[in-house]
Amino acid sequence: MKNTFGNNISITLFGESHGAAIGAVIDGLPAGIKIDDEYIHSQLKKRKPAGKLGTARNETDDYSILSGVFEGKTCGTPLSILIKNENTKSSDYDKTRFLARPGHVDYTAYCKYKGFEDYRGGGHFSGRITAAIVAAGALLTPALKEKGIYIGSHIKSLGKECDRDFDNLKKDIEQLEGLDFAVLDNDKAQKMKDLILDAGQKKDSVGGVLETAVIGLPAGLGEPWFDSVESLISHAVFSIPAVKGIQFGAAFDMVNSTGSVFNDEFEMKDGKVVTKTNHNGGVNGGITNGMPILFRTAIKPTPSIYMKQETVNFMTKENAEIEIQGRHDPAIIHRARVVIDSMTALVIADLLTGRFGADYLGGKNEIRD
Amino acid sequence: MKNTFGNNISITLFGESHGAAIGAVIDGLPAGIKIDDEYIHSQLKKRKPAGKLGTARNETDDYSILSGVFEGKTCGTPLSILIKNENTKSSDYDKTRFLARPGHVDYTAYCKYKGFEDYRGGGHFSGRITAAIVAAGALLTPALKEKGIYIGSHIKSLGKECDRDFDNLKKDIEQLEGLDFAVLDNDKAQKMKDLILDAGQKKDSVGGVLETAVIGLPAGLGEPWFDSVESLISHAVFSIPAVKGIQFGAAFDMVNSTGSVFNDEFEMKDGKVVTKTNHNGGVNGGITNGMPILFRTAIKPTPSIYMKQETVNFMTKENAEIEIQGRHDPAIIHRARVVIDSMTALVIADLLTGRFGADYLGGKNEIRD
Amino acid sequence: MKNTFGNNISITLFGESHGAAIGAVIDGLPAGIKIDDEYIHSQLKKRKPAGKLGTARNETDDYSILSGVFEGKTCGTPLSILIKNENTKSSDYDKTRFLARPGHVDYTAYCKYKGFEDYRGGGHFSGRITAAIVAAGALLTPALKEKGIYIGSHIKSLGKECDRDFDNLKKDIEQLEGLDFAVLDNDKAQKMKDLILDAGQKKDSVGGVLETAVIGLPAGLGEPWFDSVESLISHAVFSIPAVKGIQFGAAFDMVNSTGSVFNDEFEMKDGKVVTKTNHNGGVNGGITNGMPILFRTAIKPTPSIYMKQETVNFMTKENAEIEIQGRHDPAIIHRARVVIDSMTALVIADLLTGRFGADYLGGKNEIRD
Amino acid sequence: MKNTFGNNISITLFGESHGAAIGAVIDGLPAGIKIDDEYIHSQLKKRKPAGKLGTARNETDDYSILSGVFEGKTCGTPLSILIKNENTKSSDYDKTRFLARPGHVDYTAYCKYKGFEDYRGGGHFSGRITAAIVAAGALLTPALKEKGIYIGSHIKSLGKECDRDFDNLKKDIEQLEGLDFAVLDNDKAQKMKDLILDAGQKKDSVGGVLETAVIGLPAGLGEPWFDSVESLISHAVFSIPAVKGIQFGAAFDMVNSTGSVFNDEFEMKDGKVVTKTNHNGGVNGGITNGMPILFRTAIKPTPSIYMKQETVNFMTKENAEIEIQGRHDPAIIHRARVVIDSMTALVIADLLTGRFGADYLGGKNEIRD
Repeated sequence: MKNTFGNNISITLFGESHGAAIGAVIDGLPAGIKIDDEYIHSQLKKRKPAGKLGTARNETDDYSILSGVFEGKTCGTPLSILIKNENTKSSDYDKTRFLARPGHVDYTAYCKYKGFEDYRGGGHFSGRITAAIVAAGALLTPALKEKGIYIGSHIKSLGKECDRDFDNLKKDIEQLEGLDFAVLDNDKAQKMKDLILDAGQKKDSVGGVLETAVIGLPAGLGEPWFDSVESLISHAVFSIPAVKGIQFGAAFDMVNSTGSVFNDEFEMKDGKVVTKTNHNGGVNGGITNGMPILFRTAIKPTPSIYMKQETVNFMTKENAEIEIQGRHDPAIIHRARVVIDSMTALVIADLLTGRFGADYLGGKNEIRD
Repeated sequence: MKNTFGNNISITLFGESHGAAIGAVIDGLPAGIKIDDEYIHSQLKKRKPAGKLGTARNETDDYSILSGVFEGKTCGTPLSILIKNENTKSSDYDKTRFLARPGHVDYTAYCKYKGFEDYRGGGHFSGRITAAIVAAGALLTPALKEKGIYIGSHIKSLGKECDRDFDNLKKDIEQLEGLDFAVLDNDKAQKMKDLILDAGQKKDSVGGVLETAVIGLPAGLGEPWFDSVESLISHAVFSIPAVKGIQFGAAFDMVNSTGSVFNDEFEMKDGKVVTKTNHNGGVNGGITNGMPILFRTAIKPTPSIYMKQETVNFMTKENAEIEIQGRHDPAIIHRARVVIDSMTALVIADLLTGRFGADYLGGKNEIRD
Repeated sequence: MKNTFGNNISITLFGESHGAAIGAVIDGLPAGIKIDDEYIHSQLKKRKPAGKLGTARNETDDYSILSGVFEGKTCGTPLSILIKNENTKSSDYDKTRFLARPGHVDYTAYCKYKGFEDYRGGGHFSGRITAAIVAAGALLTPALKEKGIYIGSHIKSLGKECDRDFDNLKKDIEQLEGLDFAVLDNDKAQKMKDLILDAGQKKDSVGGVLETAVIGLPAGLGEPWFDSVESLISHAVFSIPAVKGIQFGAAFDMVNSTGSVFNDEFEMKDGKVVTKTNHNGGVNGGITNGMPILFRTAIKPTPSIYMKQETVNFMTKENAEIEIQGRHDPAIIHRARVVIDSMTALVIADLLTGRFGADYLGGKNEIRD
Repeated sequence: MKNTFGNNISITLFGESHGAAIGAVIDGLPAGIKIDDEYIHSQLKKRKPAGKLGTARNETDDYSILSGVFEGKTCGTPLSILIKNENTKSSDYDKTRFLARPGHVDYTAYCKYKGFEDYRGGGHFSGRITAAIVAAGALLTPALKEKGIYIGSHIKSLGKECDRDFDNLKKDIEQLEGLDFAVLDNDKAQKMKDLILDAGQKKDSVGGVLETAVIGLPAGLGEPWFDSVESLISHAVFSIPAVKGIQFGAAFDMVNSTGSVFNDEFEMKDGKVVTKTNHNGGVNGGITNGMPILFRTAIKPTPSIYMKQETVNFMTKENAEIEIQGRHDPAIIHRARVVIDSMTALVIADLLTGRFGADYLGGKNEIRD
C-alpha cells in the first residue's frame, strides 16, 4: 500500500527532501520496548555523510518522537518520528526544473505527479527519507537482540575492490556495528575510500555490492505464496534508492553450478539441524531454515554526478545539457548499509510478530507479570 | 497477505501437489475481458514438462473456470480457476517422510506447520501451483496487448551457454511466444537442451538466468516507498520456487562501473523522451520511465536430484542419507519463464488499474457505450 | 480488499448464484485443526431453506474441500471449499434482464459492471454465496470452543413479535445451536413462523432483528483506530445481503439515556473484573473488556417479492412493471443468523491470531510436542 | 491494518492526548489539490469545544502540514498533518491511574498494552485524535465538491428532542456547513443545548443520533464482498469514540415493515434512474444506486461524568469509587458530526479513486494539460 509497508509491524514514510520535515509512523510495535536514544543516534550517524566522503549538506538528523512512547518505553500505539529539514539550498534546483537528471527521478516524478511534484532535491524520492527508516530500525534492533537476532552488512565490493568474506558472523556483525565505513578488512576499507574520493575528483561516482547477514532466526518464518522471506526483504530493499539487484545466498554467482553442488546438505550439529553449506542463504522454499539469512544487494553508482551530461528538457521536449549543482556524494553504498540493516530489522520483526503474536518483542508487564 | 498478492488486481493461490486440486482466485478483474481458452492452453503448455526434458508426471493441466466469467467474458467478480491433480504417486513420499531433501522445503515446512504439513510432492510449495499463476497471467495478457504492452522472457544463460542479447524487443517477444524452449538463438537452444539431458543422466540438475522484458508501458507507474515497480515485481517473482536472485537493468553486471557510464542519458526520439542506454532497466526511482522494463532472475538448479545425498531425519534428529524418488526435472528454467511472464503480467495489470481505474483494462460496454 | 477479508486469518469469496460453483479460500488457518464434517453439515443445514419457510430451490449444499487439509486436519495452507450449484433455473431471469428489481442489485450491478454482470439470481451478490461463509465459520468454531469461546444468535424480533432476552448466555447459545429456527421462546417461534408464512401468502416479505452474543473472550482484543472490534464486525456483517443496521450493546435503544445510566460500572466478581450492566456490549474504546460481546443487526425484508412492482427498464430508460419470478423466501432472517455467527467467528479468530500468534488456535504437534 | 485505513487513499493516525502532538499521514492523495487553510480551520473549529457546551481544555488546534504539499497544492506524496498538544493537565490522571472509569478505555487499554499504556486523557483513544481526521477530511472535501459531491450531518435527536427531517438535501447541507451546532430547526437546537447544559449541571452527560447524507455520487461504487459501501463507512465510523450503532436508510426503524413497503421502487426522473423512496439509504447490495447515501449513527452519552461512580482498581483487584477529574464535555455529539463527515469524505474519496483512477480527484496539470 504505497508508502506503508508491513503486515503486523508497519512503517509509513512521509516527507520531502526540501520540505519542513521527513518522518515515519511505525505501527504495531509491542508495548514495553525501551527507547535507546544513544543507539538511535549512533545508527543515524552511520547514515550521515562522513567527512570527506560525504555531501556538503550538513544535517543534524535530530529526531523527535511525537507519539507512541510513554515514560521511555513504547506504549503500543503508533510511534511517530520527525526529523526536521535544515540547511536546504532549494534554489539549486530551480534552474534545472525541467531538465531530467540522467538516472534520476525528475522525469518519472513529473510523469507520475503531472507537474505538481516537489522537484527540489529529489522530493519524496530523496535518500534523505531513509533517515526515518534508520530511526525505525534502530528502535527495533535492541528488541531483536534480546531474542538473539543480529543483523549486519558490509561492503562486499566497491569498484574492483572486494572485502573479505564473512567468517565468524557473530563477531563480524559486532565489528561492523562499531564501524562507520563497513568493511571488515582495514586495508580494503582504505582502498575503497580512495576509489570514492577519486571518483569524486573526476566528477563521477561509484557503486558496489552490500552483503547482509541475519543470525539467530528460528526456522519456519515466511509464507510460501506470496510472502516468502525473500519476497518481503526484496520488496523492502528495492524501495531504497539506488538498489538495482538482490540475491539470496549464491544465486547469480552459482547459476552455472549443479544441484549436487548448490543444494545445502543437512547434518546434525550440537543437537540442531544445520546445513553444511549455505548457498540458499538460509531460506528454503521461502521459509527460514534456521541458518543465517545471507543476501547481497547491488547499489548502482550515485546518479548525481558533476560532469556535464546530455539530457532533455521534458517541458520543451528538446535535447539539452545539464551540469548538476547541489550537494551530492560520489558514493552512497557506505551510507546505504545501515538503511538495509534497518529495513531488514523491520521485516524480521514483522515476521516474528505474525508468527508469535503481537507482544512477542515487547517488554514484560512490570505491574502484572 | 500470505497467499494473496496485489492491490487492485489480486491473486489468491491454493492447492497442494498431491491434493484434490490446485487453483487461484483472481479478484479485481475488470468486466468485459474476453476469455481466450486457446491462448490459456498454449501458455499452460509452455509450463508443462516437454518431451525428454520434462518429468514423468504427465499432467493434463485441464482447468475449469468456476466463477467470474459470464457469456465468455469476465463479469467483474472474482474469477476462480481450478486445475485438478491427477496421476499422483503419493506413496513415493511416505518412505522419506522425515528425511529433509537438501535444498527443499521438507524441513522448513515441518518447522512452520509443526508436523501437520502435506509433505507429498512439496505440498503447497510445489511448482505445480504455478500452473494457476500461468492461467491467471494468460487471462490478463490479451488485455495488456490491446494496450500495446508485451511481456516476454528468454533463457539468458544455462550452465555456461548464453543466449544472444535482446535485439528488437517487439520481434524477439513475438518469437519467444512461439517457442516452447525460450532461447532466441537456435544453436544455443540445442546446446542448452543437451546440458539439461546430460545433467539428468548424471542424476544431477542445472540452473540458469532468465531475462524478461516488458515493452509499451507508460512512464509514471509505481510508488516511491514502498511499492516501487522493482519492489512489486521482485515480491511476486521471489515467491516462485527456485528464484534466488533478481536484478533490474545492469545491476550486478555493472556495479564496477561509474555513474557516468551507468546513468542513462536522455534524448528526444520521434517526439518522445527516451534514454540512449537502459542500464536502469526502465525504472528510475522505482517509477517506470517509458523505456522497456528489463530484469534478470537467477534460477537455482532444481534441488530434487536422484543421486544419493547426506541429510538428517528431523524426527529422530539423526544424520541420514536420502535417494530421492518421485518424478523430477533436471531443470525447470525453461518451464519457469512463462511463470515469470505471468506474474509480471499480474503486477503490470495491478499497477495500470491503480493508476487509470478499475475499468481500464476491461471491455467496452456493448450495451451502453 | 474487495472479496478478501481478514488480516491474519482471511476469507476470499467467489462464485455466482447460477454459475458452476461458489466457494471460499480461507488463508492463515493454523495447522492441526480437526475437520468436523458433521458439524459443518449441521451448520450449512441451518442456512438452508427449511420446509415451508424456505425457497423452492432445493440445494444440497454438498461441499468439497480441495486444499489445506491433510489427513483430516488443517495443514496450514489455504483451505479452499467448493459448493457446486445445482438445480438452477436461469431462464427465469432472462425475461427481466433489464428490469431493476426494487431493493435489489440488478441496477447497481449493471452500473458497476457495465452490462457484463452475471444477472442470473443476483450473480455474485446472491445470498447463495453465504454458504461458503457458513462452511468457513464452521471450520473455526470448534477451535474457538476449545478456547472457551462461544457464539450464538437468535431472532430478537420479527415483525411485531419479540423473543425473550438472553438470560444465561452459555445455556442460551447451546439451545440455539440445536435449533433450526433460532428463537429461544417456543411460542414466539411459532408466531414468527406464522408471520413469515402469512407474508409469503400475500406475495410479500418480512424482516427483523438478530441479536448475537460472543462469550469467553479475553479483554484486550481490537485496535483503537481503525480496527476496533466494532469496526471489524460491522465491516464483515454489512457485507451480508439484507443487513442494513448494527448496534453494539444498547446503542439506538438508549441514546435518550444519560452517561450515569449508560456507563457500565465495574466490579470484582470471583476475582475477575466485570461490569454490572453491559450497555456497551462488551467493548470499551473499540477493545474487548472481557464481558460478552452483544450486538444486534437489522435484517431488511427480503426484496424479492412476488407482487407486481413499479420499476424501470434501465436499458431503454423507461418506466416499467415487474413481477418477479424465480424462487425466493418471504424471510431470510432465520437463515441469516448462522451467516452472522460464522462471520463473527472469522473476525474473532482473526483477532486472536493477531494477538496471540499464528499457531494459537491450531492443534498440538503430535510429533514434537 | 491497525491505525491505517483506506485502500487507495489511506489515513494513518498517531498521537496521544497528553503527548507532544497528534497527527495523521494521508497517502494516495492525487497531485494538484489546492490546500484551503481557511476551510480546514473552519472545519476544525466545528470539532472544538464551543463556549459553554465545551470542555475547559482550550486547544488552538493549529496544525502544520509537514509534507505532501508544494506551492500550495498536494504534490502526490504522503501528506502529514501535525497538531501540537497544549494546555494539558496530566496530573489529573495520576491519582486515578488504576481506577477504571466506567464506559472508558482505562481497563481495556491496560489489558491490551499490559501496563505500558499512556493513560493520560485516554491516550491514543482520546477524541482529541479526531482533530487529525477532521483536517484530513477538510483537505478532500473541496475536491469532492468539484465533482458535485456534498456531505453533511445533523443531530437527528438528542435526548427526547428531535430535529426535523432532511428535506432539500443540497440546501440542508449548505445550511449545516454554516452551523456550529448542527441542527436544522433553530428551536430544537436551543432545546438540545439546554439538555446538554442541564446534563452538565447534574454532573451527567447525554447522547443522541446523528444523521448523515452524501449527495452527488454516481451509481456503481462499492464491492459486493467485503467492501460494500456500508462495510467501509461502518468500519470507519465505528472507530470514532462513542459511536455504538449505525444504520443505512430505515433499517432498525422499519424492520417491522414488509418488503412491499421497504423496497424502493424505481422510476425515471429527468432521464435518470431514481427511486421513489430511499429506505435503503442509497445502497443496494452494497453498491451505490445514485440516490443519496443516508445513514444514522448512535452516539452514546459521554462516559466521562463528574458524579461519583462505582468501579474497580484493576491493579489491586478491589472494588473502588471514582470521581472523575479533568475536563470533559457533557455531550460530544455536536462535535462528532464533523468527524463523521470527514471519515465519510475519506471513504468516498477512496472509492472514487479506486474506480476512476489515482488522478481522478486531482488537479489539472498546469504545464502539460
